[in-house]
Amino acid sequence: MSLVLDPAAQDLLFREARTANTFTDEPVTDEQIQAVYDLIKYGPTSMNQSPLRITLVRSAEARERLVGLMADGNKEKTGKAPLVAILSADNEFHHELPTLFPHFEGAKDMFEGFGREARESQATLNAALQAAYFIIGLRSAGLAAGPMTGADLEGVRKEFLDDDHTPLMVVNIGRPGENAWFPRSPRLAYDEVVTTV
Amino acid sequence: MSLVLDPAAQDLLFREARTANTFTDEPVTDEQIQAVYDLIKYGPTSMNQSPLRITLVRSAEARERLVGLMADGNKEKTGKAPLVAILSADNEFHHELPTLFPHFEGAKDMFEGFGREARESQATLNAALQAAYFIIGLRSAGLAAGPMTGADLEGVRKEFLDDDHTPLMVVNIGRPGENAWFPRSPRLAYDEVVTTV
Repeated sequence: MSLVLDPAAQDLLFREARTANTFTDEPVTDEQIQAVYDLIKYGPTSMNQSPLRITLVRSAEARERLVGLMADGNKEKTGKAPLVAILSADNEFHHELPTLFPHFEGAKDMFEGFGREARESQATLNAALQAAYFIIGLRSAGLAAGPMTGADLEGVRKEFLDDDHTPLMVVNIGRPGENAWFPRSPRLAYDEVVTTV
Repeated sequence: MSLVLDPAAQDLLFREARTANTFTDEPVTDEQIQAVYDLIKYGPTSMNQSPLRITLVRSAEARERLVGLMADGNKEKTGKAPLVAILSADNEFHHELPTLFPHFEGAKDMFEGFGREARESQATLNAALQAAYFIIGLRSAGLAAGPMTGADLEGVRKEFLDDDHTPLMVVNIGRPGENAWFPRSPRLAYDEVVTTV
């Protein structure tokens, strides 16, 4: 009994939550995504960098372009999901640091001096943390997430983003439909993952 | 009211949870970390790669070596936290795929063929997702996490890991102590993060 989180919440977020491959037709609203964001924005990042950016693909035209960039096995579900989001890292996140990390005046200039490659590495790591918070947040809203890296991500950057943003993944979002998932795959045991020194 | 997660759980995991800089003396047990892992192991990764590895730094000797590698601003709290964990990515995760992703027989060979650099990129992204799940999991156990990238991470690799593992961050773990945190820094507004196409 080491966990204090309510068992129903454990199930909602981890134990019973699954990556969905089919969805119902029920729309996912901007209000739902805003509620998710307003929860998960508090998740920690290095120096509060908060580099995650979210592109909601809502128009039929944009969805069609995105589907064309997905790996074959991901095209059908990305075409049918009620909502699809592109999650990316803002490699110029340091411009926001005077607001986000106000007690360290030199933060913006420091990251400017580090150069783009170092910023991209930081942005990718911290946006990935936030991508996980976003997945947990969608589950907090009773939604299923279908995160995918199987895509022409460089193509996604060119079609939907710009050179300042690195796409990390595409996420299908909605209520799970029929036969929404495969049987759960095994996980590594504690002793395979954790060592003590 | 778009969220279905219990408001107390929202507070525990996101709204009231904070990165702690001081801790009480209460020990963090292996049983607590196992309970956290057994919850968060279900969080999704690409092809169930599950590359996160956790090194618990428990001995005084190991703690001293780690403190020496932390950035100056992180040394004191890393020295005093009841437990410190090094989170790393296993760049040879593909050796586990016959177990973790058994319905795709060629997965291990495919990642072997991709080469180390491509695997390291995948491992870093997916271990970062799992690092975020781990932070959420610690909070699920009523513990405060203090994730830090301010360290000589290459030194951490040499002292505690090997060439097959890339350290992502160090996490202080315990119950928050006195004056455990600074005032919460601002977050970006929804419209600054989310765009629609």
